[in-house]
Amino acid sequence: MKIETVDLFYLSMPEILDIGDGSQDALLVRVRAGGFEGWGECEASPLTSIAGYVCPMSHSACKPVMQSVIGHNINTPEDIDAIAHLVHAQSLDLLQADHILSGIDIALWDLLGKKNQAPVYQLLGYKKSYPKLAYASHLFGESPELTFEKVKKSVQSGFHAIKLGWSNFGVQPIHTDHAHLMAAREAAGKNTLLMIDAGTAWKNNVNEAALRLQKLKEINAHWLEEPFSNGNLSAYKQLSVCRPTVPLAGGEGCNNYYQAKAMIDHAGLSFIQIDAGRIGGITQAKKIVDMALLRNVTYVNHTFTSHLALSASLQPYAGLEAHHICEYPAEPKSLAVDITLNYIKPDNNGYVTAPQEPGLGIIINTEAIKKYVVDTQITVNGKILYKTPEL
Amino acid sequence: MKIETVDLFYLSMPEILDIGDGSQDALLVRVRAGGFEGWGECEASPLTSIAGYVCPMSHSACKPVMQSVIGHNINTPEDIDAIAHLVHAQSLDLLQADHILSGIDIALWDLLGKKNQAPVYQLLGYKKSYPKLAYASHLFGESPELTFEKVKKSVQSGFHAIKLGWSNFGVQPIHTDHAHLMAAREAAGKNTLLMIDAGTAWKNNVNEAALRLQKLKEINAHWLEEPFSNGNLSAYKQLSVCRPTVPLAGGEGCNNYYQAKAMIDHAGLSFIQIDAGRIGGITQAKKIVDMALLRNVTYVNHTFTSHLALSASLQPYAGLEAHHICEYPAEPKSLAVDITLNYIKPDNNGYVTAPQEPGLGIIINTEAIKKYVVDTQITVNGKILYKTPEL
Repeated sequence: MKIETVDLFYLSMPEILDIGDGSQDALLVRVRAGGFEGWGECEASPLTSIAGYVCPMSHSACKPVMQSVIGHNINTPEDIDAIAHLVHAQSLDLLQADHILSGIDIALWDLLGKKNQAPVYQLLGYKKSYPKLAYASHLFGESPELTFEKVKKSVQSGFHAIKLGWSNFGVQPIHTDHAHLMAAREAAGKNTLLMIDAGTAWKNNVNEAALRLQKLKEINAHWLEEPFSNGNLSAYKQLSVCRPTVPLAGGEGCNNYYQAKAMIDHAGLSFIQIDAGRIGGITQAKKIVDMALLRNVTYVNHTFTSHLALSASLQPYAGLEAHHICEYPAEPKSLAVDITLNYIKPDNNGYVTAPQEPGLGIIINTEAIKKYVVDTQITVNGKILYKTPEL
Repeated sequence: MKIETVDLFYLSMPEILDIGDGSQDALLVRVRAGGFEGWGECEASPLTSIAGYVCPMSHSACKPVMQSVIGHNINTPEDIDAIAHLVHAQSLDLLQADHILSGIDIALWDLLGKKNQAPVYQLLGYKKSYPKLAYASHLFGESPELTFEKVKKSVQSGFHAIKLGWSNFGVQPIHTDHAHLMAAREAAGKNTLLMIDAGTAWKNNVNEAALRLQKLKEINAHWLEEPFSNGNLSAYKQLSVCRPTVPLAGGEGCNNYYQAKAMIDHAGLSFIQIDAGRIGGITQAKKIVDMALLRNVTYVNHTFTSHLALSASLQPYAGLEAHHICEYPAEPKSLAVDITLNYIKPDNNGYVTAPQEPGLGIIINTEAIKKYVVDTQITVNGKILYKTPEL
């Protein structure tokens, strides 16, 4: 089979709020080949990614992503790998390329799974898909009391693992940080996993971060996430050897294998968090899983949008029993809910499992998402390079 | 002063060839504030960068670059730094952002230099601008004989340093590589600096690269550039300790400070090559210069386009006498020549110096470039987000 069409759909809520909620818009990718159809999602700026897919060539290493996809073979997993290599060679100097490739790669795996009547994790070589403990991500409350209520509600709704993050944590007075942390643990009870996400709050300041370790230890934080900017290897490394030890997590900002490898090799991480919608898709994510295994670092997905993205993010480590934690979109906007007809729901113990159905096992609700479509057109020298396709 | 307007101009040769020549198109940036005007250039996909400048917000950390620039203060170098911080916070998840920021940052330095009647390198804290040995970059010839002729011609035209690169080097039979290397040294003579650029030919294969070291040593290669993909720290590091030792150069693919720092700290580089048009502009390039100094790594610019880009690339290390090598666009397309009215020409010894005139010291030839303007329009939900502005 050859890849016949790749259609990009820019979807958006009617209003985008200036908050840290990545489920407010989406870039869906539909790939068709040989009578099969696959769907993927980029965790990326939709308009910028569309432009990078169709842009005119600048030179031999700055071509539109389209050129490495349309008309190429799609019969085996090796074909998907070949497309990734081609994109990296032909779009080397197109910075946005990895974000664009991500949704395409995911859609190609979905298509290949449907063709082979097998879930993607089996195509990746896993025999079985193990349950993962789903954690709900929440912003800290505006006061310690509101943080308490949030966590209480999340536990009551069935989550056995909870992450609290960003907001003002790390930049407000340290005693306020402490009050939030203690409220969270009190509400969570002793047996709920509690993770804390600093959202790069301390930029380059290891001392500021280290000041929080004692309290994080006291509340038994399972990890401290993104204390610094992605790729700030030396700051991560320094913090990782400060006492008391709190395991560090990071990596969501990585957009290729080498960046993730650098974080694993040099940042002192205990958990590497990869967004399949940014890293270049399932192909690159699986390579990072394999490397994390070698380095004794635990792999965790980063997912904040639809259950299409969630299924894609589960596949690369579905077969690893010991890597058992999964970020679960807890409060998505209606757009992210409406993208799919079916969902990956936590069981009574709070565990989720990658679908057993072919491909990603997720059905796109093409009717429901029509109302979110953002009509987009890009014209260059009188020629229309992109126009929103028919759903 | 507040930043009043930022105009992006997509310029292109009438035909783009599928060759490794980055001077075939350009994205020029014009910034206006308080009656002053500054110009910059992004080394980036023009259409994709324009889209990232105007794209609708996706969430609080994925905003259009525009939002961190228009209306903000521009009175001091600290204001430019503040804009970079804002872009990195507000466009954290917009992968293309650093390439877009680069041209804007360069234009802001140009504007501030004009306002203060000082060259940019003085605003950066340097008292003097030292001459740099200009090296001409050429593709290897199609045969060793043609490589010989190319190098001969380059020496005759006044260059005392020459780089040969990419093309088939590294992937053709090793004896062919050797023949090219020997032809190059023979044509260059004993006293011309000769650098070899592998253009990431060996991907992840350290052994393939190591096989070439003996011959590179024999021809006294000043450096071996980009043996592997940017950011492949472990492969670089392994090669750097192979015998015989050939100094390694790399870094042109870095798009932020932390990536460059990782290359300096963990890749065993002797030379760090930074493109001010990709790394986030002069501001980030200068930070990398300061860090390279601490680590005893030599800073070199990466420049392949206009003399506007060349001046921008010289400023961050203009005041460092010992860091004295400069990539010089040797065979630019007419577009890159026509962008400016004046040029930075090598002296009789083959040295170039950053201009003494205010700002970047480069005058844009707005009349000449009109014929290269690519008429572009981006429409989202019926609203025109971008339309080529008036030159």
